[in-house]
Amino acid sequence: MKKEDDMAKQDTSRPARAAGAPDPSRRSLLRGTLAAGGAVAAGLMAGRARAAAPVTSVTPDPLITEVQDWNRYLGGGVDTAPYGLPSEFEADVVRRNVAWLTADTTSSINFTPLHALDGIITPNGVCFERHHGGAAEIDPAQHRLMIHGLVDKPLVFTMADLMRFPRVNRVFFLECAANSGMEWRGSQLNGCQFTHGMIHNVMYTGVPLRLLLEEAGVKPSGKWILAEGADASGMTRSIPLEKALDDCLVAFKMNGEALRAEQGYPVRLVVPGWEGNMWVKWLRRLEVGDKPWQQREETSKYTDLLPTGKARRFTWMMDVKSVITNPSPQAPLSHGKGRTVVTGLAWSGAGTIKRVDVTLDGGRNWHAARIDGPSLDKSLHRFYYEFDWDGSELLLQSRAMDEMGYVQPTKNALRTSRGENSIYHNNGIQTWRVQADGVTENVEVS
Amino acid sequence: MKKEDDMAKQDTSRPARAAGAPDPSRRSLLRGTLAAGGAVAAGLMAGRARAAAPVTSVTPDPLITEVQDWNRYLGGGVDTAPYGLPSEFEADVVRRNVAWLTADTTSSINFTPLHALDGIITPNGVCFERHHGGAAEIDPAQHRLMIHGLVDKPLVFTMADLMRFPRVNRVFFLECAANSGMEWRGSQLNGCQFTHGMIHNVMYTGVPLRLLLEEAGVKPSGKWILAEGADASGMTRSIPLEKALDDCLVAFKMNGEALRAEQGYPVRLVVPGWEGNMWVKWLRRLEVGDKPWQQREETSKYTDLLPTGKARRFTWMMDVKSVITNPSPQAPLSHGKGRTVVTGLAWSGAGTIKRVDVTLDGGRNWHAARIDGPSLDKSLHRFYYEFDWDGSELLLQSRAMDEMGYVQPTKNALRTSRGENSIYHNNGIQTWRVQADGVTENVEVS
Repeated sequence: MKKEDDMAKQDTSRPARAAGAPDPSRRSLLRGTLAAGGAVAAGLMAGRARAAAPVTSVTPDPLITEVQDWNRYLGGGVDTAPYGLPSEFEADVVRRNVAWLTADTTSSINFTPLHALDGIITPNGVCFERHHGGAAEIDPAQHRLMIHGLVDKPLVFTMADLMRFPRVNRVFFLECAANSGMEWRGSQLNGCQFTHGMIHNVMYTGVPLRLLLEEAGVKPSGKWILAEGADASGMTRSIPLEKALDDCLVAFKMNGEALRAEQGYPVRLVVPGWEGNMWVKWLRRLEVGDKPWQQREETSKYTDLLPTGKARRFTWMMDVKSVITNPSPQAPLSHGKGRTVVTGLAWSGAGTIKRVDVTLDGGRNWHAARIDGPSLDKSLHRFYYEFDWDGSELLLQSRAMDEMGYVQPTKNALRTSRGENSIYHNNGIQTWRVQADGVTENVEVS
Repeated sequence: MKKEDDMAKQDTSRPARAAGAPDPSRRSLLRGTLAAGGAVAAGLMAGRARAAAPVTSVTPDPLITEVQDWNRYLGGGVDTAPYGLPSEFEADVVRRNVAWLTADTTSSINFTPLHALDGIITPNGVCFERHHGGAAEIDPAQHRLMIHGLVDKPLVFTMADLMRFPRVNRVFFLECAANSGMEWRGSQLNGCQFTHGMIHNVMYTGVPLRLLLEEAGVKPSGKWILAEGADASGMTRSIPLEKALDDCLVAFKMNGEALRAEQGYPVRLVVPGWEGNMWVKWLRRLEVGDKPWQQREETSKYTDLLPTGKARRFTWMMDVKSVITNPSPQAPLSHGKGRTVVTGLAWSGAGTIKRVDVTLDGGRNWHAARIDGPSLDKSLHRFYYEFDWDGSELLLQSRAMDEMGYVQPTKNALRTSRGENSIYHNNGIQTWRVQADGVTENVEVS
């Protein structure tokens, strides 16, 4: 953290720094405050201090580095951050909510800051949250997972018991069925964090659900499982046995470390490629039955009301989708004409992504984007499209195609087929308008 | 967070909970403290409260859940944790240092808690640190990267400039050359965090160094580059141009988000498969020259003194290596006889890992381990070996083989060939002795 008195003089900081030697005691004090007292608050304070400092440009002579004084004093030591946090300069890269969206934060949503990320891994600290009764706070030593119903041998597992089964490691995206839901009725939210941020992509470590069900012995009449969470909402979803025996995991780690409380600590269900609501968090019970349970979350919610008055049900798989994350409303094109990198994410519940196209002119001309990084089953894929910007207005869109050949539709195509009542399963093509000054907005194109 | 008065009565908590209704205001207050006041401190406090609570066992009737009361009240909401942290129950999963190892924390080391992780991704918060002048605290808007020396056109890049070059995403391990260094003279540290924890494995996003060097135009006489950090130590290392043009990256993101300050924010060099010291953090300068610079870190340090008095130099590649992370001294085998999962990590600077063998008896019999998760070039690989433990003493070892056919040697084989003076590049086989009671120790076998 720069000292504020130095910040004010930073355009003449070489003599100032030489006269006023670095003050390690004050720096240590600031560090101590940071470690003990909340990095985010300190980061915001530092942000204000920076904003007040004059905007200087570095002289073209690269050897003169008046404002780059960080090599003149010792940096922070290792003992202040046993669990590390982002730089104070990244204090804006956080989950955010939309105030009007839900009545109360304990039954609410926040969104992953997609516009500030790159690659395909979502760091645990910014994975979006969705709770229906708050994030349960569970002592793992007391937690139990029960398997019962149409099984030969009902079982209750401790967390230690689960650790004695073979584990696997898989990267999967988790997308809320309502992601982009507010786009059904037009562009309402100015930022991909809000339009597409109910998604994250982490490496899970867990036990294949198949192994636990085999341990209990599913009776021939067993065709469905009910997964129940230990949170206050008692989240329950019916899942076909075929999926449970295929690729579902009972997972206890994300990106190497324990699940975060808001992601189901100590154990959650992983239902690859299917809507996030089914990935029951704080998993406490798996019941085997012969038909679906018709729970609230699969009848009045997470269904798609059609113009006929009937509803699509059990629309579990998240269809092929993509979004451009940069530029986007929260991350405008600030560098002017010339070399420009467009980047974004693509994913499909049906498997890998085979192709992403990008248009600069609202769909008149499409260009193949470059997919880079591991291409994993039911995982986010990162794409880039590099071009020379002439400074004219852009209508940016991306369109993904998955390994099954499914192609991402336009929003209007979805509206035509499903009507105007939908909330869930909007995988339509997103449009950003980039103005000549780089300002970027969420817009609709016909 | 459980209320402390409830903790004391948890074995009779059903009536207590019914009488004393959940107190959302107090819970919110505790939450607020957590958010504003340092999760680690709060976690340790909670840990003490838990230790004082009676150890109860759950009744065999799975429907009676006296101590599992977390579904009876609302959990935490989303507004308290814009940047999330691990559960308070995971407060022990942190980087740790060894007090006697260095004189001061500002020029020091801490270690990744490998025994508490799984999969292959290291979460950013626990990636080990090694600073030679503290972690520089750099304003990315002021930071510059200069390329000069034997080039056609010296260049100075802002961070925004770097973002206009094509980017790639790659997962690589970073291992300090001194990892396991204290094992050269025998088993001194009781835990894989300390013996092998100077390693981490993250997905980097960055620009291929080749593209930046091509932009500057390397003259035909240019054969080496010097990379220099902007920290107080002015870390400098010579790197052959061939490696620089091959797979090195100028990286600004790790696991999707900005580099952490202690990992080189805002930009570091990535030198895949080679010793961590060369991955210059806080990268400010790349000079192209015709021979190596003979800097401190490649002469008096990071060389291997042989019994002849001569030193091995430029031993950049990290050789094939593995370690069992569970069980290990910090994570004993606490569950008794029966089904047991042994797990660990394997890696090689030469490429992917093709095979890992595990022995239970100090090397008399070897068993093929199961490698699970993505097998990526110069990345950690996760292996598992499942067996039925009969409760007798174990001498656990793992032995990795990479795609080039290199096989991890014993420590004694290394000592025979390199003598007793070495500090760096110990890739020898590690042994853990597991006693009948599960207690696990770091031992030597002949």
